[in-house]
Amino acid sequence: MPKGILIVVSAPAGCGKDTILEQALRKNDNLYYSVSATSRAMRPGETDGVSYWFKTREQFEDMIKGGELLEYTEYCGNYYGTPKKAVTDMLEAGKDVVLKIEIEGAANVKKMFPGCTMVFILPPSFAELDRRLHKRGTETEDVIRKRLETARKELKFAEHYDYLVTNAALEDAVDDFLAIVRAEKCRKDNCPGVIEGLLSE
Amino acid sequence: MPKGILIVVSAPAGCGKDTILEQALRKNDNLYYSVSATSRAMRPGETDGVSYWFKTREQFEDMIKGGELLEYTEYCGNYYGTPKKAVTDMLEAGKDVVLKIEIEGAANVKKMFPGCTMVFILPPSFAELDRRLHKRGTETEDVIRKRLETARKELKFAEHYDYLVTNAALEDAVDDFLAIVRAEKCRKDNCPGVIEGLLSE
Repeated sequence: MPKGILIVVSAPAGCGKDTILEQALRKNDNLYYSVSATSRAMRPGETDGVSYWFKTREQFEDMIKGGELLEYTEYCGNYYGTPKKAVTDMLEAGKDVVLKIEIEGAANVKKMFPGCTMVFILPPSFAELDRRLHKRGTETEDVIRKRLETARKELKFAEHYDYLVTNAALEDAVDDFLAIVRAEKCRKDNCPGVIEGLLSE
Repeated sequence: MPKGILIVVSAPAGCGKDTILEQALRKNDNLYYSVSATSRAMRPGETDGVSYWFKTREQFEDMIKGGELLEYTEYCGNYYGTPKKAVTDMLEAGKDVVLKIEIEGAANVKKMFPGCTMVFILPPSFAELDRRLHKRGTETEDVIRKRLETARKELKFAEHYDYLVTNAALEDAVDDFLAIVRAEKCRKDNCPGVIEGLLSE
């Protein structure tokens, strides 16, 4: 069975990456979403193994020492990381694996999996991103301003990604993402042995 | 308006490239099929400007001298080539242009348009290709044998292409091709200025 492909998705807050991935996963049942691990406390409404794998700080540090993480980072005093085994098992089983990950973690994954597919989700404009962050109504003016500043910094890294998906209309962005996954499965580098197999007949 | 992308498609005889492209063009109305020019005589059932642009040998040689062709080749005493202006006009107008072209012509187009997308269509197996060529019932045993030999030679060039589409089931192959076109439109290199445009807001 051919191995699956690894897709890394990054986006600034408010670009709709969660919704895009949720819908894409519903439409393509060969896609597997890799749940991150974290040492931060579970929040109301979150489920272990769905939102995150919730670990104690000690458990997380054991995972780091044991080489069990593809990448990890510390943010606001909490660890966040990508468990390695689930990803490699799924790839071996032919599943295509999606990692939702911020730009630094993405760059680290790229070093370990140079053949991975890097997708960056863009807002249609900063004005629209501003509008969306305000619409949520959950954050203070100060937090929104900081998020927009961060978005601007993150966007500069988009040029290191393979694909840019602009989320102007959700359905189009989902279809763009699914087309990227489908096309990447046809990419010659992701089909090792196919030509040789035919020629050996 | 963003420019269109150029897609070069090659395949050995019997791999179904005509049918795949016909159906893909029907499903994506931003795709434009570039009709080749030839100096061979029109056959019954063919239409000028649809099957080919039919030219006299002299007209074709004038096109060569005038630099009006992206690439051309001589095969069995007849010229075949790709008119340049229609392609570049359509790309400028934002249309995505498909060239159906054999491996040598494809390599020449790649030199002129290094950013073009190269798609190679594969048969599921040589046994199946053999069966399909026999099923047509239009060619002698000798011609079929030669076509299979040529297919084997052409297949060795597939490794220079970006994408491999295996035509095992027609509908899947059409959807693979359409996904490739859609994904390529999102490829960062095909979206010049998008990140800069956002950052300049």
